[in-house]
Amino acid sequence: MKFRIARTALTEAVSQVSKAVSTKTTVPILTGIKATVDEEGLWLTGSNSDLTIQVCIPIRKDDKEQVKVDRMGSVVLPGRIFSDIVRKLPGDEIDWDVDERWKTVLCSEQAQFELKGLDPEEYPRLPEFHEERMFSLPADLLKSMIRQTGFAVSSAEARGVLTGVLWKMESGRLTCVATDSHRLSRRQADVEAPEDFSIENVVVPGKSLSELGKILADQSDWVDVILSENQILVRANRLLFFSRLLDGTYPDTNRVIPDGGKTEIRVSTKEILQSVDRAALISRDGRDNVIKWTVKEEGLIQVQSTAQDVGSVMEEVRAQVKGEELSLSFNAQYMLDALRAVDSEEIQILLTGTMTPFLIQPADREDALHLIVPIRTR
Amino acid sequence: MKFRIARTALTEAVSQVSKAVSTKTTVPILTGIKATVDEEGLWLTGSNSDLTIQVCIPIRKDDKEQVKVDRMGSVVLPGRIFSDIVRKLPGDEIDWDVDERWKTVLCSEQAQFELKGLDPEEYPRLPEFHEERMFSLPADLLKSMIRQTGFAVSSAEARGVLTGVLWKMESGRLTCVATDSHRLSRRQADVEAPEDFSIENVVVPGKSLSELGKILADQSDWVDVILSENQILVRANRLLFFSRLLDGTYPDTNRVIPDGGKTEIRVSTKEILQSVDRAALISRDGRDNVIKWTVKEEGLIQVQSTAQDVGSVMEEVRAQVKGEELSLSFNAQYMLDALRAVDSEEIQILLTGTMTPFLIQPADREDALHLIVPIRTR
Repeated sequence: MKFRIARTALTEAVSQVSKAVSTKTTVPILTGIKATVDEEGLWLTGSNSDLTIQVCIPIRKDDKEQVKVDRMGSVVLPGRIFSDIVRKLPGDEIDWDVDERWKTVLCSEQAQFELKGLDPEEYPRLPEFHEERMFSLPADLLKSMIRQTGFAVSSAEARGVLTGVLWKMESGRLTCVATDSHRLSRRQADVEAPEDFSIENVVVPGKSLSELGKILADQSDWVDVILSENQILVRANRLLFFSRLLDGTYPDTNRVIPDGGKTEIRVSTKEILQSVDRAALISRDGRDNVIKWTVKEEGLIQVQSTAQDVGSVMEEVRAQVKGEELSLSFNAQYMLDALRAVDSEEIQILLTGTMTPFLIQPADREDALHLIVPIRTR
Repeated sequence: MKFRIARTALTEAVSQVSKAVSTKTTVPILTGIKATVDEEGLWLTGSNSDLTIQVCIPIRKDDKEQVKVDRMGSVVLPGRIFSDIVRKLPGDEIDWDVDERWKTVLCSEQAQFELKGLDPEEYPRLPEFHEERMFSLPADLLKSMIRQTGFAVSSAEARGVLTGVLWKMESGRLTCVATDSHRLSRRQADVEAPEDFSIENVVVPGKSLSELGKILADQSDWVDVILSENQILVRANRLLFFSRLLDGTYPDTNRVIPDGGKTEIRVSTKEILQSVDRAALISRDGRDNVIKWTVKEEGLIQVQSTAQDVGSVMEEVRAQVKGEELSLSFNAQYMLDALRAVDSEEIQILLTGTMTPFLIQPADREDALHLIVPIRTR
């Protein structure tokens, strides 16, 4: 294996696959990055067994030669040090030379590194996919679906499927749902899929989605999503993102979402967010991080919190209120997460009672909702 | 205590004193910020018993009223939460109202916080100083003296005086010295002091200096340095910085600094720094973080490092070499710290042998030097 490569292209690709590279040494070879050079270009792969990212640097880009191949081949290099070296090498180009024992020499101007490589045959193979079970959507849309649901998964490993986001599809409409049983977030969108294509009970680990969100930050085109029995593949421009799926049946969440309420509120997202954010300064020092809302008929939400040893906060936010006056308490962090996920200027809140779940939705669209279960206070 | 204050001025002052506020709760009142309003303005104090920062927000600044006092007084408020509240309050002005039990109400537009304050009489008093033992220097100069020596102190609590920087003065020349016994850094400068004023064995804790460096980032005027038996006071514009001094006698370091050598080298600071920085990627995975230099008569420094399980690096940097060819090994981090502290474009290196301390100095000035003790390698 012998080739020359443009350093900036390599730096970018290495930083992408590094997001998947294992930091634990349970499977030593997974702390490495696999590099393969063939007639298409240089392929880099990083994996932590839950998720795998593969990136290709093509031979040519915009008519400029990025990879000049002398001898094709493959090697696994230690991930962290390799990525640091690539970032700090002095020149614009790097010469690679890998011998039959995977000893790898990286040269750039006056600097020469020699790294002990590993046998690429020992690196796990990528899962196989068939393109039948596939749909497509814009990268930006996928990114916002992840951002608006991913925070609501359970962070307790023991909660099984609840640590993932449920993906469902029917008649070309994709639904993502996440819940930790104290709150729930749901986002829907139309995607491009074969007419009779449907999916149910596909549960993607929350951690994988949070890495996918970061990876998609650089993408603006459409992406393909391809499913197999226990894996999901997201295919973007010169980038493959694989994640295992979670085992188990996701609970039916439809019945917990109320379709009417006692009190309807419309309020500025920014004003209520800033007010809850300030009240959280007090609640975080109290028990259970609790904030209380009292909704007044004359068009006010009173936001309050008290922490015994610290003090208290009280402020009022103007709102349009229809229906009964009501007060209820909830976890400040759940509310902040939900409000931060809303892109619209106004939200609509539907209260169903002091102790029953309430809904938060953007006022101008129906494809997103957040549900929070109130907290009983003394 | 009752007054109104401009929020931006308060935010800035709070962030300055917060650098000293204790995060440990061994002395509970020190987790608070003391606020006192008098005819000069609002005084804020933060302290962790080793160091204390006091800032004044004057009644008027540039002809604008910043503090409008209704009733003078004093209170101690919980530091972390108070500083978060000030940062997040909605309005441009904050109304304070403190009652006789130190219950404090902070109001800004629609938001109202009530905090449990503490009795300011329980807050430790500031140390006393007499202005006889005083000298002055520009804030920028003090900042660079701290930056160019502070990194060389010992980080091991048990090393006593070596965890601090020695300040000496004779005939108006201030010398700062720090050493952890494997390396030493020294910086000298002329300051404004009474003719017969001298100091010796004043040892300022490294941690205090690193906070002082951050505080001085905002200062561009001259500062006064005032000494007492066991405290140092740095007085800048509307800011007082107190630190305790370390007990014990600082060792005599003059005898370890060589005044001639076998080999003299001149080299670009940037080139040798980048080269050592790259080599450190390999050395950090090896034993003792060792890099080897081989100095060649024809005008080269070979920079090398090997880590058994990882690989090796080798590069060459052009240099002017006078004297014997020599090779020596040293701790990569010590070298990086020293090279990063040099502001000049070229450095001069004076080697005295393979196992004896060597000197690094800016090529264009004599007021700064760094000494490193080589490592014996197999």
